[in-house]
Amino acid sequence: MDSSAQTEGTLRDRAREFVERDWVTNSILGVIIFNAITLGLGTSDTVNAHAGGLLNVIDRVVLGIFVAELALKLFAYGLRFFTSAWNIFDLLVVSVGLLPDSQGLSALRGLRVVRALRLLSVVPQMRAVVQALLDALPGMGAVIVMISIVFYVFGVMATLMYGDAFDIWFGTLGRSLYSLFQIMTLESWSMGIVRPVMNVFPYAWAFFVPFIVITAFSVLNLFIGLLVNTMQSAVEAEAEAEFEKLRDLVKSETDVVDAHVMELHEEIKALRSEIAQLKGGGNG
Amino acid sequence: MDSSAQTEGTLRDRAREFVERDWVTNSILGVIIFNAITLGLGTSDTVNAHAGGLLNVIDRVVLGIFVAELALKLFAYGLRFFTSAWNIFDLLVVSVGLLPDSQGLSALRGLRVVRALRLLSVVPQMRAVVQALLDALPGMGAVIVMISIVFYVFGVMATLMYGDAFDIWFGTLGRSLYSLFQIMTLESWSMGIVRPVMNVFPYAWAFFVPFIVITAFSVLNLFIGLLVNTMQSAVEAEAEAEFEKLRDLVKSETDVVDAHVMELHEEIKALRSEIAQLKGGGNG
Amino acid sequence: MDSSAQTEGTLRDRAREFVERDWVTNSILGVIIFNAITLGLGTSDTVNAHAGGLLNVIDRVVLGIFVAELALKLFAYGLRFFTSAWNIFDLLVVSVGLLPDSQGLSALRGLRVVRALRLLSVVPQMRAVVQALLDALPGMGAVIVMISIVFYVFGVMATLMYGDAFDIWFGTLGRSLYSLFQIMTLESWSMGIVRPVMNVFPYAWAFFVPFIVITAFSVLNLFIGLLVNTMQSAVEAEAEAEFEKLRDLVKSETDVVDAHVMELHEEIKALRSEIAQLKGGGNG
Amino acid sequence: MDSSAQTEGTLRDRAREFVERDWVTNSILGVIIFNAITLGLGTSDTVNAHAGGLLNVIDRVVLGIFVAELALKLFAYGLRFFTSAWNIFDLLVVSVGLLPDSQGLSALRGLRVVRALRLLSVVPQMRAVVQALLDALPGMGAVIVMISIVFYVFGVMATLMYGDAFDIWFGTLGRSLYSLFQIMTLESWSMGIVRPVMNVFPYAWAFFVPFIVITAFSVLNLFIGLLVNTMQSAVEAEAEAEFEKLRDLVKSETDVVDAHVMELHEEIKALRSEIAQLKGGGNG
Repeated sequence: MDSSAQTEGTLRDRAREFVERDWVTNSILGVIIFNAITLGLGTSDTVNAHAGGLLNVIDRVVLGIFVAELALKLFAYGLRFFTSAWNIFDLLVVSVGLLPDSQGLSALRGLRVVRALRLLSVVPQMRAVVQALLDALPGMGAVIVMISIVFYVFGVMATLMYGDAFDIWFGTLGRSLYSLFQIMTLESWSMGIVRPVMNVFPYAWAFFVPFIVITAFSVLNLFIGLLVNTMQSAVEAEAEAEFEKLRDLVKSETDVVDAHVMELHEEIKALRSEIAQLKGGGNG
Repeated sequence: MDSSAQTEGTLRDRAREFVERDWVTNSILGVIIFNAITLGLGTSDTVNAHAGGLLNVIDRVVLGIFVAELALKLFAYGLRFFTSAWNIFDLLVVSVGLLPDSQGLSALRGLRVVRALRLLSVVPQMRAVVQALLDALPGMGAVIVMISIVFYVFGVMATLMYGDAFDIWFGTLGRSLYSLFQIMTLESWSMGIVRPVMNVFPYAWAFFVPFIVITAFSVLNLFIGLLVNTMQSAVEAEAEAEFEKLRDLVKSETDVVDAHVMELHEEIKALRSEIAQLKGGGNG
Repeated sequence: MDSSAQTEGTLRDRAREFVERDWVTNSILGVIIFNAITLGLGTSDTVNAHAGGLLNVIDRVVLGIFVAELALKLFAYGLRFFTSAWNIFDLLVVSVGLLPDSQGLSALRGLRVVRALRLLSVVPQMRAVVQALLDALPGMGAVIVMISIVFYVFGVMATLMYGDAFDIWFGTLGRSLYSLFQIMTLESWSMGIVRPVMNVFPYAWAFFVPFIVITAFSVLNLFIGLLVNTMQSAVEAEAEAEFEKLRDLVKSETDVVDAHVMELHEEIKALRSEIAQLKGGGNG
Repeated sequence: MDSSAQTEGTLRDRAREFVERDWVTNSILGVIIFNAITLGLGTSDTVNAHAGGLLNVIDRVVLGIFVAELALKLFAYGLRFFTSAWNIFDLLVVSVGLLPDSQGLSALRGLRVVRALRLLSVVPQMRAVVQALLDALPGMGAVIVMISIVFYVFGVMATLMYGDAFDIWFGTLGRSLYSLFQIMTLESWSMGIVRPVMNVFPYAWAFFVPFIVITAFSVLNLFIGLLVNTMQSAVEAEAEAEFEKLRDLVKSETDVVDAHVMELHEEIKALRSEIAQLKGGGNG
């Protein structure tokens, strides 16, 4: 290990120590909240007219702070930085702000705001909530795949059957999937879509009503599965605790009886030795 | 303690005793119900035309009764009056009736009616129901904060991206938040809002569909968390009761065995004393 | 007891026996199903044009059969007939058919059809399902009363505040309650009602959004309460069964140990008697 | 058994072995996915214009493969082929593609796509999910029958009462049932249907609001029943596991005590033999 590597090691350790200090993480949190507020103020036309320049300056300074923070973390942790999904989330969310917005694309201006979602990645309680939501996903995998297949098949069918007559709703596969999603949420499904379709295809209800019933029933089962999973771990923990209490109880109770039985052993051993004496005495 | 303080103490005691008497609380409840009915009658134009003056008089008398009741309670309990959230609720709800309504603000006329909500604070069963609802809130805190952050971020983004083209829906942050709330409840989200937006911004679905999925999934988890919490306390109580039954059972069963083992002790002690006699006899 | 009373008693017994016979109840069920079908056919204009007279005749014959059945039951059970809510339901539902429909009131023509609901009261499985639904109601009582109070207060307020400007929606207390029910179901609440109201009263959202949140949260708690109740009885039955299995197990296990301890008693008693002999022998 | 039957038996065995080989089932799965994609591409007008002929050829080849696969399975399993509901499903879904589509019926073109649902019948995980959904149905039978009766009665009533004035919504029993389904899903029930009906029949709310409450409450109970069932089997399995752990514990604990008691037996037996010696010696 030459001295430059050693220095780097020391620098890295110092950097890590620095970014993990309470006042540093709290300052970053403060900057995130402050930035969330200034981004909110940026939606107001009057504020923009009077202090638009200031808001822009603040935004660049904040972006600078975030870039510096992430660069420091990258230096401090090296490749391990990428082992945490939260770090990657932070990186992506901050990178959006670095995209050139000279074209004045309102979509890009809006996207910068996702930076405020760092509130979710920086506050530990929020991380826990998001983590809990994500943890629920794997258990729902198979049902989500099933719903996707149903969506795809109904989407292709709707496009082929109703695409020509109702171009806006079912003209392409994408439009059909969007319309089916709308129908699944039950928004204007009948008055808005199915009744007009039924004016042209009188039996369209035989396509859409089963779709609603199947997706509603699948989503319901998704929900029940999720609920039973969550509940089961709670019930298991409860049963485990009860078992331990019962085990302690049964052990202590039988230990008492066992101790008394063992005392009997002592008693009878004493008896035997007395009888042995007696025998010795009787025979002597 | 001088005599005036003593008199006050006695007066306070008497006042407390008075406001806590059954017939007093029942009378107040009667007045609340009577007032709720007269407030309801006040919504009818024909009743107002024929008996509007009478209703006004009744309203003032009832208000006087409520003010007197609360003043008496304030005197009786002193500062402890404010330790009960229900008392503060009563105070606020009655105070609304004291605001001057000379300007004829229909909003203020309407607000007087919240007084009928005292039914919730006066009847113990209703208090229990409301309490149960409020007790559920802390457990939902983190998820509600998360949903608020998501709302804020999506609200700012929607204002920046769609505010210029759709001023009525997304013109200000407030309007965006209201529109997002509407979209979260799935009311006319597609036909009413997202399809028109997609006519201008064809990829708007990539903003709104994830918003719907995220909020729906979060609300669902909020609900599951609430349900599992409620269920868990029920299951815990059940497990506790079962454990106690099992503890009694195990104790009584092992006690029987233990008693028999102890009898053996007696038996063997008797045996030893007999052998001791025998030894004595055999040796004697 | 004179002979006429005796004859009546015998007749009553016979009548009871008759109405309780399987083929009689099955025939009545057949008539109900047949009537349900003819009532359904009566909705078709073509069927009415060709066989309207026949359907009318069938309807009167069926009505005659139902009246005869209920009269027989009334005679057979006397006043006890009214102890069953199902009998009263049958009586009401059949009585509707006896109302004069000469005025051609379409409402009355429609009401006759409730007779087909006898399917729910005659088939035991259906009775069980309906009973289960009704059994759930008492546990929801307090929350339903709470929601009713909230509805009443918001209804009166909406009538006072928005009644003048939006007569169709909030003109009377009844209209307000209906509109609030619609808003609670989230149907067109924003695009249909609240946005138009906000054009006149910009802060109307501060009235309607809390109303939606409160009712949604209350209904959700109603549902959770219902679910926890149902679940709890299931869990209790499960815990009861588990306890019984454990009790049997603990008893049989300790019985084995106890039996061995009791054998020790016998053993030691035999030992004592031998020692007594020895003592006798040793002393003899 | 003559040689031709033997040959057939051998052929059948070979066929069975062949269709059950991993690479065969995987190839079929690949063909299904490939076909699902080509069917999806077939919805695009540009793809159809450039490669419509190719897609048609692919479709026929795929159909040929499916027909060959099912024919082989039919030959391999004989009548046992029909004992699996999945096989019948595959047969139906493939048969749809054999219907002549020369008339250019867009409905038939669309129906061919159901073939992609074979993804659900071929992948074991998907089969399990669908099976779980179907398994939930029997437990819901009684409530579904009840809801059907309620739908039928309300449908007939609506047709009789509102059919003349609102032909499009309630003109026939079928239209009424569709409209009631729409109302049950709460889509535009008030603004779209009930308010217009109330303009003609002011008391129509007394028909529709109870319908909504009854069906919502029934569906909710359906859901609760489903949830409690699922949960109960989870809780039962948990209780069973806990019972087994406790049984092992109680047995091992009492076995320890019992072993000590049995040792006492040995001890006392030894004692008795010594005393017998003593007696013998004492008497000798």
